[in-house]
Amino acid sequence: MFAVKTLNPNMNSVNPVLVHVTRGDLVENRHRGAVVVCDPSGRQVHAQGDVTAPVYPRSAIKALQALPLLETGAANHYQLSEAEIALACSSHNAEPAHIDSVEAWLNRLGLDQDALECGAHAPLHEPTARAMLLAGRDPGRVHNNCSGKHAGMLTTACCLGETSQGYIDREHPAQQRWFDALGEMGDVDMRSLPWSYDGCGIPVVAMPLTAIATAFARFAAPDDLGQTRIDAIERITDAIAANPFMVAGSGRLCTELMQVTGRRVLVKTGADGVFTATVPSRGLGLALKIDDGNREASEIALLATLRQLEILRDDDIEALAARVRLPVFNTRNILTGYRQAAVF
Amino acid sequence: MFAVKTLNPNMNSVNPVLVHVTRGDLVENRHRGAVVVCDPSGRQVHAQGDVTAPVYPRSAIKALQALPLLETGAANHYQLSEAEIALACSSHNAEPAHIDSVEAWLNRLGLDQDALECGAHAPLHEPTARAMLLAGRDPGRVHNNCSGKHAGMLTTACCLGETSQGYIDREHPAQQRWFDALGEMGDVDMRSLPWSYDGCGIPVVAMPLTAIATAFARFAAPDDLGQTRIDAIERITDAIAANPFMVAGSGRLCTELMQVTGRRVLVKTGADGVFTATVPSRGLGLALKIDDGNREASEIALLATLRQLEILRDDDIEALAARVRLPVFNTRNILTGYRQAAVF
Repeated sequence: MFAVKTLNPNMNSVNPVLVHVTRGDLVENRHRGAVVVCDPSGRQVHAQGDVTAPVYPRSAIKALQALPLLETGAANHYQLSEAEIALACSSHNAEPAHIDSVEAWLNRLGLDQDALECGAHAPLHEPTARAMLLAGRDPGRVHNNCSGKHAGMLTTACCLGETSQGYIDREHPAQQRWFDALGEMGDVDMRSLPWSYDGCGIPVVAMPLTAIATAFARFAAPDDLGQTRIDAIERITDAIAANPFMVAGSGRLCTELMQVTGRRVLVKTGADGVFTATVPSRGLGLALKIDDGNREASEIALLATLRQLEILRDDDIEALAARVRLPVFNTRNILTGYRQAAVF
Repeated sequence: MFAVKTLNPNMNSVNPVLVHVTRGDLVENRHRGAVVVCDPSGRQVHAQGDVTAPVYPRSAIKALQALPLLETGAANHYQLSEAEIALACSSHNAEPAHIDSVEAWLNRLGLDQDALECGAHAPLHEPTARAMLLAGRDPGRVHNNCSGKHAGMLTTACCLGETSQGYIDREHPAQQRWFDALGEMGDVDMRSLPWSYDGCGIPVVAMPLTAIATAFARFAAPDDLGQTRIDAIERITDAIAANPFMVAGSGRLCTELMQVTGRRVLVKTGADGVFTATVPSRGLGLALKIDDGNREASEIALLATLRQLEILRDDDIEALAARVRLPVFNTRNILTGYRQAAVF
């Protein structure tokens, strides 16, 4: 088991600057953070910063939270498509393709978006949000970027004949199931770890970055985990790799990266500057957190680390060049600087 | 003169965590930064972090940039109102009152928004931006939060018979004038300092936080600066204190704070986590910068510092309580934590 330090808001350890933003010849903004890459034994292959402090992984662990959907047989029972399994692992943009799929899926369960217990928010996809505003349509629960994950939890609860109402409560089996799966994958006692509420209302459990990275390393190389889990991981991996649009959407790094890498590298964003990656070809898992919670910085730090470890190849980096070093323009369209990795 | 260090993107000095965001019992996000309070001699009354590294002050120095508007006689020549002088010092919300005033002012100069050389962007005020979107109206240059500053620069150029076209260029007298004023106020050689382009297109000059704080301390206690400057500072101070709405707008900290303090404490936000304050009653100036550029963190760090130094009184803090420690809610309207000062 990984030891969890009591979190000190004035902690002495200082993470390195991973990403910075220049203006002219100077660095104007700096983003510190920690990143770790582990193998399935928990060995650190690469580490920067304090990788043992507890971090809320937020949405970056959705592929692990989806394990019970497969392992209980619920996905087979309801004949979920690969696109639906990908949606269960998504932080989607609420573009029409996402919404249509989640609604059709809920209908097959005999439910509608009222059964979702996530809160409503405007689509992450700005043009979709604007179109809804112009059409006078308020966002519903199905537009929450987590609605696919919630549909997955409802699917399992329905299949097992559990009360679906209250499925987001910490004590509900729908939550306890992924606590078990993630605890096994990350070698942590999920019920002893600090927890709170995530953006969508389900519990979020803080754990060391090392535990998150180890869980994804085992996801990348599941050979020792028993056939049920191996099969579940195989199906989730296939589903995500075949449906990168369903996992995020237009203009999103997760989608663009996996459109390039296929199942060679799976990545997932989490709120407040978290990112994870699964590297099946190398049997590695990655977890990172930007101290200040900045999303753009988490994306750049992810790409820089994957590049440094040669997990992304030169041709991958070329295809993602606009993501690696972002030009920043002012309102006059003058190039003022770059958002880029600070260290590499 | 203050020495300016060459900026090293991997600088060794580490600023303290000034603000953090909790989730449950843990700190989830941390914002480091530096803050300094100086007297008119440049003496540091209070300092946290590296206060000598060069920082782009962005829009936080607009009151100093407006000095030439008064000192050249241009404001008198065009009989500017107090509201217009406040707009010259503003990062306004582009609410109707701001736009109407800037347009009327430009009309008095025989100009319209085409004369402004700032870029267009949607109003900072979200409801106004939404209303424009619903009405099918594109934002123009007048909606740029800096359009009042630009109107002020045009006013001075017109009054002195200068070419107004190209007034945003570094070599144009409209820019050179505030270089001179700020250089005198902050004891810095503006032309030897690193510079780049600001968000609106005018030059932005990097200087130590100590120089910015000293400039505002002299603004707070201008007795030794000669009658022309004393008169200019007096009029700017009166204009801002009497028109806190014009300096920012609905829902903005600058406006809400000065509605409470009047001319006892003037504050001004700048992009990428900068804030400045002028404290006439104590003859002090403040400058702060959040390392990662986070605006919300800059606001909380400002209030915490002003409170710690008893520049804000208990009744001020009570009136601004909702700004001092911000509850954070998720999409289910569950309170997940607080955004608050880390140190005090």
